[in-house]
Amino acid sequence: MDDTVRLSLAEAHALALDTLIAHGSSEDQGRAVADTVIAAERDECRSHGLFRIPFYINALKNPDVNPRAEPQISDLAPGVLHVDAHFGFAPLALQRSADPLAEKARANGIAALAINNACHIAALWPELERLADKGLVAFAFTSSLSYVAPAGGTRALYGTNPMGFAWPRRGRPPMVFDQASSVTARGEIQIHLRDGKTIPEGWAIDPDGKPTTDPQSALAGAQLPFGGHKGAAIALMVELLAGALIGDRFGFETTARDNGTGAPLGGEFLMAIDPARCVRGGNAAASLDHAEALFAKILEQDGTRLPSDRRFAARARTPTEGIRIPKSLHDTIIGLRA
Amino acid sequence: MDDTVRLSLAEAHALALDTLIAHGSSEDQGRAVADTVIAAERDECRSHGLFRIPFYINALKNPDVNPRAEPQISDLAPGVLHVDAHFGFAPLALQRSADPLAEKARANGIAALAINNACHIAALWPELERLADKGLVAFAFTSSLSYVAPAGGTRALYGTNPMGFAWPRRGRPPMVFDQASSVTARGEIQIHLRDGKTIPEGWAIDPDGKPTTDPQSALAGAQLPFGGHKGAAIALMVELLAGALIGDRFGFETTARDNGTGAPLGGEFLMAIDPARCVRGGNAAASLDHAEALFAKILEQDGTRLPSDRRFAARARTPTEGIRIPKSLHDTIIGLRA
Repeated sequence: MDDTVRLSLAEAHALALDTLIAHGSSEDQGRAVADTVIAAERDECRSHGLFRIPFYINALKNPDVNPRAEPQISDLAPGVLHVDAHFGFAPLALQRSADPLAEKARANGIAALAINNACHIAALWPELERLADKGLVAFAFTSSLSYVAPAGGTRALYGTNPMGFAWPRRGRPPMVFDQASSVTARGEIQIHLRDGKTIPEGWAIDPDGKPTTDPQSALAGAQLPFGGHKGAAIALMVELLAGALIGDRFGFETTARDNGTGAPLGGEFLMAIDPARCVRGGNAAASLDHAEALFAKILEQDGTRLPSDRRFAARARTPTEGIRIPKSLHDTIIGLRA
Repeated sequence: MDDTVRLSLAEAHALALDTLIAHGSSEDQGRAVADTVIAAERDECRSHGLFRIPFYINALKNPDVNPRAEPQISDLAPGVLHVDAHFGFAPLALQRSADPLAEKARANGIAALAINNACHIAALWPELERLADKGLVAFAFTSSLSYVAPAGGTRALYGTNPMGFAWPRRGRPPMVFDQASSVTARGEIQIHLRDGKTIPEGWAIDPDGKPTTDPQSALAGAQLPFGGHKGAAIALMVELLAGALIGDRFGFETTARDNGTGAPLGGEFLMAIDPARCVRGGNAAASLDHAEALFAKILEQDGTRLPSDRRFAARARTPTEGIRIPKSLHDTIIGLRA
């Protein structure tokens, strides 16, 4: 028995959009979220695909979240753009601000974007790719709820705090990475719990601060940063950039105000750089060609691949093949619309 | 028998400066290097202290290195400053460009600095602290020689590629981290070799790409990135920023042109952000105070400390107590002047 449902990308998009609108989203908010969710399905990045729709719907139980919010864009400095997302979802704020951010980056060589009051449930790569597609080098940082212990500590403090980076490539998708500051995604631990499996050592500590392989203890305790104190330093940097620097919340403050809905409401910080403004003579093509020499050197070693290459391989297939999602997930989403 | 030599910071500075000048450094180049080396001794960050003087002298065997170079500063864009270090040492280029970079960051909110053709043998925290002392948030990236395997790979490609970040704190030294993208510093492996000890698993692979605990095989093979593919992604980002983006060399290109002198000649990329331009109302003090709430949350957990706190503790002592260096190192440096 096949327990999956096959959908075209257009059908999947309509399913996401209709569900969001049925729950009170404005057309623009819903469309931006659906675009992001279906981009993930298109890339077979399933943990950020339709799987997330119930998270978005659940976030609406948080009375602070406004699914009809209109992001408000303003200037903070020649090189700094500000978006108040007014407690809407992040994707619309990101879509609306990409062009003005790119314009600032081209005019100044480098520019930053401070997004406040956004509900960010997605990956970072959609916004990074959007900037890289405009020929820009891009960074993005956002914090989440309090899940990760600081270096040497025993209790959750930092969010899983993803940091992402994109490098544009001519005539093909960019080099993009988008990685949590924790050893593993929280969802991985939840999946181990669901499947009755233990988790590997090194992922988490229990509520007493002791190493654990029990997913339930791990979720009640704290996740560990990747690479020990070095990953913890990245997590700390992300808190500062997406929190204090732009006047928004730290992960532990998001948790304190969360009302149990698990809605990561807070800030996101992005930077965009125009390669044409970073070399004398302004020959960005030469810089991009030079990068290709490095990528070739990486790929000439057996066992290597570039970050995101799996996503791009899926992207070549799914527009014609469509996607498959678990029937249980399809039922859940259909149920959300009833 | 005491096999150390005690020096005041002023004596240590004079020792470094005199040695550099005896080998042909200009006063300005020598003084900038000595400032950096003695800042490390002051902070008991010994691997970047006088221990490095022989590295600087050795780098002069590379005919490309010019110890009398005058850095040339120019504008690439309203938000991007360029420094051609003309194959001098990095510290002078960094000292001379700090004020103009800060000016750009304050005017635009965010600014970048592209340094080309520098011989960078130091840590990144001196330049990061200099910017944070001006009230700026700062990032720095530089690549080195080809020592680290890419994710999934078996041969050295990336440099140890440090990335550093500084956050200003009012009335006290900044929060700074400065970390290699490799699990451990190359010097740690060299020290294990010298002492006849094996290295822990996970630090390196041998020339056949197999895990090794033998320091000699590790040095002949490749170091591993910290945190697996996530640290490798950071290493790749550093190569792109300090190399392709600013028209400079990748680690493997530095190695190819190195003439066996081990002089890391290439680029450095920095970014500086003015917190006053990243929030509406421009109240940077409120942003910095907010960060202190996070630091307090970290430190209330037993076993934690902030990055660089050990350095700052040493900094409180050494101006009065002076420093101690191994007599063998002192003899080596004195010998270099003969």
